[in-house]
Amino acid sequence: MPKVTFLPLNKTVIATEGDLLIEVARKHDIFIDAPCNGSKTCGKCKVRISSGEVYTQKNLHITQEEIDNGYVLSCDTRIKSSDITVELINIESSALNNMQIQSISTERDQLIFENSRKQLIDNDMEFGTYVKKDYIEIGLPNLDDNISDFDRLKREMRTKLGYSQVFMRLPMLRKMPFILRNGDFKVTVTHIPRGKRTTVVNIELGNTLDRLFGIALDIGTTSVAASLVDLYSGKLIGRASAGNAQMKYGADVINRIIYSTKKEGLDKLNEAIIKDTINPLLQKMYKEADVDMEEVIAFVASGNTTMTHLFLGVYPDFLRMEPYIPAFLRAPFIQAGQLGLEVNPETFIYIAPNIASYVGGDITAGVLASYIWADSQNTLFIDLGTNGEIVFGNQDFLMTCACSAGPAFEGGEISSGMRAAPGAIEEVKINDLFSAPIIKIIGEKSPKGICGSGIIDLIAEMFKNKIIDRRGKLIKDNGNPRIKVDEHGIGSYIVASKEEWPDINEDVCITEVDLDNFIRAKGAVYSGAATLISSLGMSFSELDRVMIAGGIGNSLDIENSIIIGLLPDIPRDKFSYIGNSSLIGSYLTLMSEDARKKMECIASQMTYIELSVYPSYMDEFVSACFLPHTNTDDFPSLSSLLG
Amino acid sequence: MPKVTFLPLNKTVIATEGDLLIEVARKHDIFIDAPCNGSKTCGKCKVRISSGEVYTQKNLHITQEEIDNGYVLSCDTRIKSSDITVELINIESSALNNMQIQSISTERDQLIFENSRKQLIDNDMEFGTYVKKDYIEIGLPNLDDNISDFDRLKREMRTKLGYSQVFMRLPMLRKMPFILRNGDFKVTVTHIPRGKRTTVVNIELGNTLDRLFGIALDIGTTSVAASLVDLYSGKLIGRASAGNAQMKYGADVINRIIYSTKKEGLDKLNEAIIKDTINPLLQKMYKEADVDMEEVIAFVASGNTTMTHLFLGVYPDFLRMEPYIPAFLRAPFIQAGQLGLEVNPETFIYIAPNIASYVGGDITAGVLASYIWADSQNTLFIDLGTNGEIVFGNQDFLMTCACSAGPAFEGGEISSGMRAAPGAIEEVKINDLFSAPIIKIIGEKSPKGICGSGIIDLIAEMFKNKIIDRRGKLIKDNGNPRIKVDEHGIGSYIVASKEEWPDINEDVCITEVDLDNFIRAKGAVYSGAATLISSLGMSFSELDRVMIAGGIGNSLDIENSIIIGLLPDIPRDKFSYIGNSSLIGSYLTLMSEDARKKMECIASQMTYIELSVYPSYMDEFVSACFLPHTNTDDFPSLSSLLG
Repeated sequence: MPKVTFLPLNKTVIATEGDLLIEVARKHDIFIDAPCNGSKTCGKCKVRISSGEVYTQKNLHITQEEIDNGYVLSCDTRIKSSDITVELINIESSALNNMQIQSISTERDQLIFENSRKQLIDNDMEFGTYVKKDYIEIGLPNLDDNISDFDRLKREMRTKLGYSQVFMRLPMLRKMPFILRNGDFKVTVTHIPRGKRTTVVNIELGNTLDRLFGIALDIGTTSVAASLVDLYSGKLIGRASAGNAQMKYGADVINRIIYSTKKEGLDKLNEAIIKDTINPLLQKMYKEADVDMEEVIAFVASGNTTMTHLFLGVYPDFLRMEPYIPAFLRAPFIQAGQLGLEVNPETFIYIAPNIASYVGGDITAGVLASYIWADSQNTLFIDLGTNGEIVFGNQDFLMTCACSAGPAFEGGEISSGMRAAPGAIEEVKINDLFSAPIIKIIGEKSPKGICGSGIIDLIAEMFKNKIIDRRGKLIKDNGNPRIKVDEHGIGSYIVASKEEWPDINEDVCITEVDLDNFIRAKGAVYSGAATLISSLGMSFSELDRVMIAGGIGNSLDIENSIIIGLLPDIPRDKFSYIGNSSLIGSYLTLMSEDARKKMECIASQMTYIELSVYPSYMDEFVSACFLPHTNTDDFPSLSSLLG
Repeated sequence: MPKVTFLPLNKTVIATEGDLLIEVARKHDIFIDAPCNGSKTCGKCKVRISSGEVYTQKNLHITQEEIDNGYVLSCDTRIKSSDITVELINIESSALNNMQIQSISTERDQLIFENSRKQLIDNDMEFGTYVKKDYIEIGLPNLDDNISDFDRLKREMRTKLGYSQVFMRLPMLRKMPFILRNGDFKVTVTHIPRGKRTTVVNIELGNTLDRLFGIALDIGTTSVAASLVDLYSGKLIGRASAGNAQMKYGADVINRIIYSTKKEGLDKLNEAIIKDTINPLLQKMYKEADVDMEEVIAFVASGNTTMTHLFLGVYPDFLRMEPYIPAFLRAPFIQAGQLGLEVNPETFIYIAPNIASYVGGDITAGVLASYIWADSQNTLFIDLGTNGEIVFGNQDFLMTCACSAGPAFEGGEISSGMRAAPGAIEEVKINDLFSAPIIKIIGEKSPKGICGSGIIDLIAEMFKNKIIDRRGKLIKDNGNPRIKVDEHGIGSYIVASKEEWPDINEDVCITEVDLDNFIRAKGAVYSGAATLISSLGMSFSELDRVMIAGGIGNSLDIENSIIIGLLPDIPRDKFSYIGNSSLIGSYLTLMSEDARKKMECIASQMTYIELSVYPSYMDEFVSACFLPHTNTDDFPSLSSLLG
């Protein structure tokens, strides 16, 4: 049987003639980025066959020159009977980097989380987690007092702590006799009370009252962000993020759902998020903060409806097919052990309630953290992650809708796109249309790709400098040396070239296909917001506040976002970027039972608007697929630019 | 490495020089009966080395003649470097028979169970299980009504059935979307209500209201008895029993506990009871009654404290060591899936509460089924299984104690002993001391061993016919051809010889060691009962009723039991044999929530007497180790026999 060797991993695997190359890689856990999930539309799974022969085909995403040099799309290439060698060309620039775990300085976020927690108090909500710890010294058993271990513990918790009923689950019961004896019956009991009844979830030797930890998690389609929290002080003691390892099965929720319908697809997706993404993140934080997984006894996660289905291993395909039905919005009671999550196996897994098929718990959590429900200001909340969800409301009402914006804001389906991680270009400034743009790169010295905020800057700068027209097409007839046109007539603009950056393997560029994708994405968001607001007979001018959240990155430039028509043209001081509000919402829920109840409230009270059945939405969308918009009157402050 | 071939199985395995032969067999799941768990004291693990050499030793349980013919104790034999062949000589007579599953005619028990159920009603207790089934036809989802599957189900159960809160666990949630759609949203929901809240445990396609099943189980140290019950009618639709597959790790609870402390010992014991004993019993009943395991949604088991620990995989060794502490008396909430039991994985496993370290839930269940708590009659309840537990009481009080009688009443630690299963001699009559006894065999034509009731008859008949004296020693000087004496001077009496029964491989006999074991067992029970009653300042003459329960078998002869001094010499009409009361108690608990509550009450109210700390007990015991007793005045009706 033919052998396939992947470089630079130098990993050789056995395949069968006729196997699809991308499937061979997936089967052996070799990451080839494939945002379109093998539907041959994104071109990201390009690899080079450096020796041997394959069955492959021409494709819009491969130039003749590339074909001559052995480049193929791995989703459109099948194994022949002989051995081949495959070079994973994007492994440096996007795939591996997207997956890498980053430890994030907790200092940066400490203040944001603390402020958010303080606002709870301002809103008359109590700070305090649902998990309790108590140190008890139990009398040793003897012949005159030989009740069972469980009865002895119950008696102690009844007489000393006042609980009338004490419960325990089987795995805890199995461990209890050893822990009691190893600790000489002086132990710290972690339990979850409900009035006078409580459930013991952990028993530790000696007095460990000062150690009690929890995890807050944001499960994004593209990125997963995690916080390790000291449940007593509320302090962040660890922060990390990584790409969602499900990315190899598709960049957006639709492609993931399609993959879940394949043989073992759901299991693989579930494993990718839990074993390949979340557990490594947790382990990294534990190691850095010197915390044992058994000490982590509270867990709150938020994610969109598809992500929460995949996280729980619940089949999501009925979400994709009309009439778009999720299996659940609110998850049932689940313990960490059931999911294989690396926290204490008894830990109760709380998942932020979803609102609708395409507005998930990440939005519920985000709205909680935004505090837009706490005052009378008319606020527009925009989550610019994969897809893009919008909430409009105040203390009296909350409405929401989902825009099908795709993953473009997190760099998905953009040739050189990547999430806001080290190596990503996050800011772009073009001073001269023929020269190299001035770029700011996250963390590293050389650019590996470009993230959402960078793309917004880039498009705005290209538009201002007349490198592109209002339709997002490159203006090719002025001899700009940074513009190239391939054999299919598709132009691309080079942001950073291999010549300028000797460390990089590939030019960072934006193609006309990318521009089109991004303009459709921003058009979806703008038109969604417009429809939502006008459904109440209101207009953008009546907004008191616009909050932007999500994976787009810290460097989001409001002015540029207005120039490209992603955000409405209203006074700039009404805008704020609130970061990963889904993660902050998870954190608040972890730290306060009142916050959890508020979150449940938000999910129940939110009115969901289905844009696709809204008569005016399609017209709005089409009008918004221009720079900044078909109707330039809506962007009066840009009149000099549009002149 | 040396190969070991076991005959008649013809199974060859690889061993290492120095391995203990019994461990080699255990490792490969080859059953060699070893009631003493390899402590070289019972002699039951005898095998024949038909070829090859081994390291072995002389032993009280092996005659020189046997040694010359290749017989060894497998617990005292180690592998040399060369291959050997091992004949499993007891495989026919005890081991395999003890393990075999027997289907039991439900007709025989139908009446007993029904009567017991009727007594519930007589005692103002309601008949009705905690599991409910409802058929619902749910409106199909559409674009105008696209709430989640779980919300749709909840809405239906709220509006049509009146439940304000509906819960579900993750495995059920994962299956739900498929079942709803395959059933066109017309489904039968099985759920466990608690007031206005309910937990969905099963969803089936269409209307299956007529099918709802439960399992009642008695987990004995020696035997396991199971009933498959129609939860609507209460009818038995299956009955089966088998030997407890843990037997290969020791005949009594102490040897099992010791084995649990060995490497993987606890796991093996847990696997032996669940995978090797209970699941095959269940599958046999399902097949015969055409029931699917998913339809079995209620489960009640009773067993002694050690058995319930091993059933749940909870380490039992602290039970064995002073101050004899169980991990639990009442088991926590457990689902079948956690234990790998082959019923619906969501099924709640209810375990009859234990009373003390050596008085278990089998006694609680037995007392429930005995109804001795329902009237004013002073009743002695004796469970003659492995060990032997005693309860004394009436509607006003209940007291209990455990006798350390060992497994003799179920044939354990008796050379030709076996449980009351096909092939067991259950009745013995000796008309002439030199001739073959007249025997009654369970089920089959040839005797394979002798069970508890048969041993009682045998000893009583031997005593009456002066084959043994009051100490249980054989009277060897009268030339009785059925008495043989081995080289160690230990005599044995042949009950059924190979010459008389050409089908059998070995004589069925009773040795002086067996007689001694059995007399100590009966002495433990008699003295336990005497101590318990006298602790209240009462005597046997004040008893209104004696109920005998347990695995001793249906053929228990009361007169003979009095002759050997197992039971007190009081009017014979006060005695009754009530069968497997532990199983009946489990059944009542399965069928009635009121019965379950009553059982909890019995367990809390029972006063436990620790015999070993009772001053007079040792004297009582020593006096009882005679036939019938040292104090013959206590057995006035036997005066002519004792003459």
